[in-house]
Amino acid sequence: MASTEKVDPEQGKEAPPSPKPISGPSSATCTAEATCFKVDVALRVLLFASTVAAIVVLVTSKQTVRAPLPLSAKFNHSPAFIYFLVALSIAGLYSLVTTLGSISVILKPEHSSKFLLYYAIFDVLILGLVASATGTAGGVAYVGLKGNDHVRWQKVCSTFDKFCQHLAGSLAVSLFASVLLVLLVWLSVFSIHKKIPK
Amino acid sequence: MASTEKVDPEQGKEAPPSPKPISGPSSATCTAEATCFKVDVALRVLLFASTVAAIVVLVTSKQTVRAPLPLSAKFNHSPAFIYFLVALSIAGLYSLVTTLGSISVILKPEHSSKFLLYYAIFDVLILGLVASATGTAGGVAYVGLKGNDHVRWQKVCSTFDKFCQHLAGSLAVSLFASVLLVLLVWLSVFSIHKKIPK
Repeated sequence: MASTEKVDPEQGKEAPPSPKPISGPSSATCTAEATCFKVDVALRVLLFASTVAAIVVLVTSKQTVRAPLPLSAKFNHSPAFIYFLVALSIAGLYSLVTTLGSISVILKPEHSSKFLLYYAIFDVLILGLVASATGTAGGVAYVGLKGNDHVRWQKVCSTFDKFCQHLAGSLAVSLFASVLLVLLVWLSVFSIHKKIPK
Repeated sequence: MASTEKVDPEQGKEAPPSPKPISGPSSATCTAEATCFKVDVALRVLLFASTVAAIVVLVTSKQTVRAPLPLSAKFNHSPAFIYFLVALSIAGLYSLVTTLGSISVILKPEHSSKFLLYYAIFDVLILGLVASATGTAGGVAYVGLKGNDHVRWQKVCSTFDKFCQHLAGSLAVSLFASVLLVLLVWLSVFSIHKKIPK
């Protein structure tokens, strides 16, 4: 159908002059790299959305029951859930800043190597933070769900069902955010590795 | 002081013949790369030692008190600590296998790029596992230490002091192992990044 020798009419009209000659292996990976950064932006936007969703579901988890006196359950009754909220907030803020960074790289690809290096470094830290916070909140939530007979910690979720449903939702989304962070580190590492000449 | 044209007497006497011609950017990073893998081996040995230490301290945490009936605390009374033990075991086994891998790269450096890529990929997964397990165990241990008045979970560490000391020790060593895993990922990423021609 399309001939390889066909001249692109757009190119003839308004092709900007290349600022410097493209040489060596960089020319081969340039298009792929732009695609990588587009995937990077998509993952970071998804990370931002999931951290915001997890935060909203967590802070709206308050539940009050009358059994027989009014009792309420709120996420800030446990330090584990406060740590969880702080970690999610840091991850959300980080994903917002790095999304803007990735968009800037798509527009100006010169510093892509440096960005990939910084992203791999900081994404690992945020992954450690989010994974540990998810574990902390999950561990305490599990005790709330099942109780522990050995130390006589009673179940909480039989009384505060809505509260526990919110917690479970928030934990699931946070686990998804951890997976996204692993994918982001992998993407950066693969992109850096691809730049090594064979 | 020293002339740039001075001939090194050592070089003239017993310079071994190069097995194959060194070409391109690899010649500049070759010595540094061997050093990187030595640091890698050191970190992995340290990771192995710390996971084994954390496991030993965790499984020897059993304590029995008479107050007034005999009561015992053991790590397998809580699923959080079982998960912690499993994660530490996986990390320990992984560190052992990858230490051998790194030693093989020091002896035969041809496949160093591939090893660095695989290490960066799998180290991130193990980091996520150890960080989340440390968080889970830490969250439950904190409830044991401080209790939670809102849901009437009583303190455990006032009764089982030795058990809680063991837990705290195991958690501290596990946190150190998480830091080692972050350093290992960073080392791999830096080593891969260094191979990109400027």
